[in-house]
Amino acid sequence: MTATAAPELDRTVDDVARRAQEAFDGLSLAAPGLRADALRRAAAALGDHADELVAIAQAETGLAEVRLRGELKRTQVQLRLFARVVTDGAYLDVRLDEADPEFALGPRPDLRRTLWPVGPVLNFAASNFPFAFSVAGGDTAAALAAGCPVIVKAHPGHLRLSERVAELVAAALVEAGLPAATLQLVTSQDAGVALVEHPAVRAAAFTGSQRVGQLLAARAAARPDPIPFFGELGSVNPVLVSERALSERADELLSGYVGSVSGSAGQLCTKPGFLLVPQGTAYDDVVAAAAAQVPEHRLLNPSIADGYERRVAEALGVDGVRVVHRGGFRRDADGQGWATPTFVAVGLDLLRTAGSVLLDEVFGPFSVIVEYPSEADLGAVVAELFPGNLTLTLHLGAGEPGLLVARLARHAGRILLGGWPTGVAVTPAMQHGGPWPATTSDGTSVGTAAIGRFLRGVAFQDAPQELLPPPLRDDNPWGVPRTIARRGESLGW
Amino acid sequence: MTATAAPELDRTVDDVARRAQEAFDGLSLAAPGLRADALRRAAAALGDHADELVAIAQAETGLAEVRLRGELKRTQVQLRLFARVVTDGAYLDVRLDEADPEFALGPRPDLRRTLWPVGPVLNFAASNFPFAFSVAGGDTAAALAAGCPVIVKAHPGHLRLSERVAELVAAALVEAGLPAATLQLVTSQDAGVALVEHPAVRAAAFTGSQRVGQLLAARAAARPDPIPFFGELGSVNPVLVSERALSERADELLSGYVGSVSGSAGQLCTKPGFLLVPQGTAYDDVVAAAAAQVPEHRLLNPSIADGYERRVAEALGVDGVRVVHRGGFRRDADGQGWATPTFVAVGLDLLRTAGSVLLDEVFGPFSVIVEYPSEADLGAVVAELFPGNLTLTLHLGAGEPGLLVARLARHAGRILLGGWPTGVAVTPAMQHGGPWPATTSDGTSVGTAAIGRFLRGVAFQDAPQELLPPPLRDDNPWGVPRTIARRGESLGW
Repeated sequence: MTATAAPELDRTVDDVARRAQEAFDGLSLAAPGLRADALRRAAAALGDHADELVAIAQAETGLAEVRLRGELKRTQVQLRLFARVVTDGAYLDVRLDEADPEFALGPRPDLRRTLWPVGPVLNFAASNFPFAFSVAGGDTAAALAAGCPVIVKAHPGHLRLSERVAELVAAALVEAGLPAATLQLVTSQDAGVALVEHPAVRAAAFTGSQRVGQLLAARAAARPDPIPFFGELGSVNPVLVSERALSERADELLSGYVGSVSGSAGQLCTKPGFLLVPQGTAYDDVVAAAAAQVPEHRLLNPSIADGYERRVAEALGVDGVRVVHRGGFRRDADGQGWATPTFVAVGLDLLRTAGSVLLDEVFGPFSVIVEYPSEADLGAVVAELFPGNLTLTLHLGAGEPGLLVARLARHAGRILLGGWPTGVAVTPAMQHGGPWPATTSDGTSVGTAAIGRFLRGVAFQDAPQELLPPPLRDDNPWGVPRTIARRGESLGW
Repeated sequence: MTATAAPELDRTVDDVARRAQEAFDGLSLAAPGLRADALRRAAAALGDHADELVAIAQAETGLAEVRLRGELKRTQVQLRLFARVVTDGAYLDVRLDEADPEFALGPRPDLRRTLWPVGPVLNFAASNFPFAFSVAGGDTAAALAAGCPVIVKAHPGHLRLSERVAELVAAALVEAGLPAATLQLVTSQDAGVALVEHPAVRAAAFTGSQRVGQLLAARAAARPDPIPFFGELGSVNPVLVSERALSERADELLSGYVGSVSGSAGQLCTKPGFLLVPQGTAYDDVVAAAAAQVPEHRLLNPSIADGYERRVAEALGVDGVRVVHRGGFRRDADGQGWATPTFVAVGLDLLRTAGSVLLDEVFGPFSVIVEYPSEADLGAVVAELFPGNLTLTLHLGAGEPGLLVARLARHAGRILLGGWPTGVAVTPAMQHGGPWPATTSDGTSVGTAAIGRFLRGVAFQDAPQELLPPPLRDDNPWGVPRTIARRGESLGW
């Protein structure tokens, strides 16, 4: 931010924040049916322009058409899923305590509590999901469903797409009857940073690197009035294979692993960064053969290509790292990077001594095979080297007891028994969030529980009917489920 | 912390944290019936020793016997209320997604999500509630109910009581069958600070001053793996009186105000720090007369007396502050402070220019009457001067429209229409937490929703029955309510 640009930036940022604040009252009180209809219209608008949007996304990100069509569909499903959440209303966790003159601790007033939208939400879009974690992605859908106006900071890697999606979705929301400025877009980094500190912004969501996420989280925390910052900062997603599982289906496991690492050129936050196999496992041939089949894939943008090239070189430069399959990397005339996957192998001791150069996430088609000496130590190994992950995957043999599972559950948000962590289902029971550094909070950014991040509890005491928000009124105009504490129930406590 | 003491402190802290960690597995998997029974036994143990405990508390805090007996009862009720929460099981928010080969986004695995205890919780006890926000208080009850071992940092203001309560409650929990070290006590400040940074501690709760809370919150955030810090840092709880309300019942309102400020010598986080009345209101006589009736009350401890003395002197030293009733303050032979309430009056302009010396909380029997020129500006006044509170109270005339309420709800966790904010009901719909600086998060520390602070989401994908935690198993051995997403329901999305 230069000195001369600052006043104009401040005006823009103030204007965006003020408009979001103005939208808040109308949006928070918009009836569930209206809000759900708006989300469905947004989904339909995306579908109506699928060809156009996918073409822009392909050009801007280098992701494959089939992947992008799937992602667009996912984005629509996310919006529709949240439409159902809104009309269901259980997310408000409404609690009514009847006034109780005989309450155990003395007369209890009439108390009514609901979760309520926090206010304008700032959403930093991700590079690697131009639809599903971007302008109209999961964080936006969750915040809008909660009743929060959303300001999206576009990712520079897909700016044209972001602008087009914002245009379509903002129009659909307004057409449905929601306030103007329910969804706004800003494109400059300076504006994004300034908005984290703007008094009108009440929460921020972020999907991206640990470095940038920590910088923004620190700004959110250093405000005169700190706000919640929901950062998804990446994860290495270890996959643990037992000796028995390997003896039963080595080829299937090893080629499945290569596939999970290579999809979307490994640019997924759930990519398995580590495969842990028993010492002495023969894996080179199968891994190398499968990796050799993977076609070259463009990386998302030149900056991500830079990071990938640097991190792979660092990892390969560690003394003792053994290359299992060396993938390719080249630049095209536009400066875009193209890669095929690389796999290396290390022992536990090397992993310990090398530290973050090997342990930190490499964003792209690179993964590390780790040979462990004893299954009995695996729980301690995860606690020591991989303490916080979005996912942990355990492959067991048939009927093998999974004593490790309870311990693993301390170190990830999602525990898979078999299968692969890439391919995240968007569904009520999904958890996409885990102990630090996977996420900065214990929330989830995928699945319907994601709405909880944008709500806060508000209680009303002895309020007349007409002053209560709709979900707390006796006639329950929004038809939400409510838990009622009856008078007299504390007698005998 | 001195250089020579550090190794011993470290050993103690490590030992306490390790024992809490060891207790975690057993506690998290303890069946709801067992956990609830343990909470009820803890409540009974407190009741069995009520006379002894109240006598110690009275000597240590100077609070009145009737208040302490009520607080002890409240503490028992809190434990029993959480016993009900545990057996009910709804707090786990269990979600089961059936595997669905026809899901809109491609085959969906079997996914099961529950909230699960975060791990050992560190709880900093408060000075002003030696029972209800202390060793066996609300934060402890909520964390134990969640399945988290608790380490309490005792408040130095009631150390003997803390040790006795810890002894009684820890014994009751173990007798009920919970692991040893489910509840532990540390007494030194150094140990408390060291535990905030200990890897085994997974969340911290705090009730106390903004200064100390911010210091501890910063340490929690600066860990290599930041942990959630739930701080309740105080609040000024403005009470707004409309012209019509005042014209209808001035005496009742003004004497009610004096009573709410004076109870427990104003040492309550919900004490009204400000009363906003229309310009030109005649309040001096009623306030002064009511204040003169309030008997002298001991402040909790010499350190709180120091703070009270200093803050009142600062406020009275502001040019233009008008004294409505000057209360007394003296020291006894033990250095304890004794006070009667003081009330001052200011205009809005003075409040603005004086800033934090008047706007920040004064802990004790002191309150500020503010004369406002126009009711139409009250929303803006609250937003500008009192942006974050535990409570906001609005007194309206009969039938008067409360257009302000929606706006007020942005600035507090609990909105009262009439009545007084002191006297917090412990009940499912209570919200005791609000925008910064009232609390550091959007959670509540009173009422059953307080349990949510000590839980995190964990999902299991395609796990065999025997590896699932009990609430996710098909046979639902804990009998918890569950929301099920059926296969096929996404057809047509």
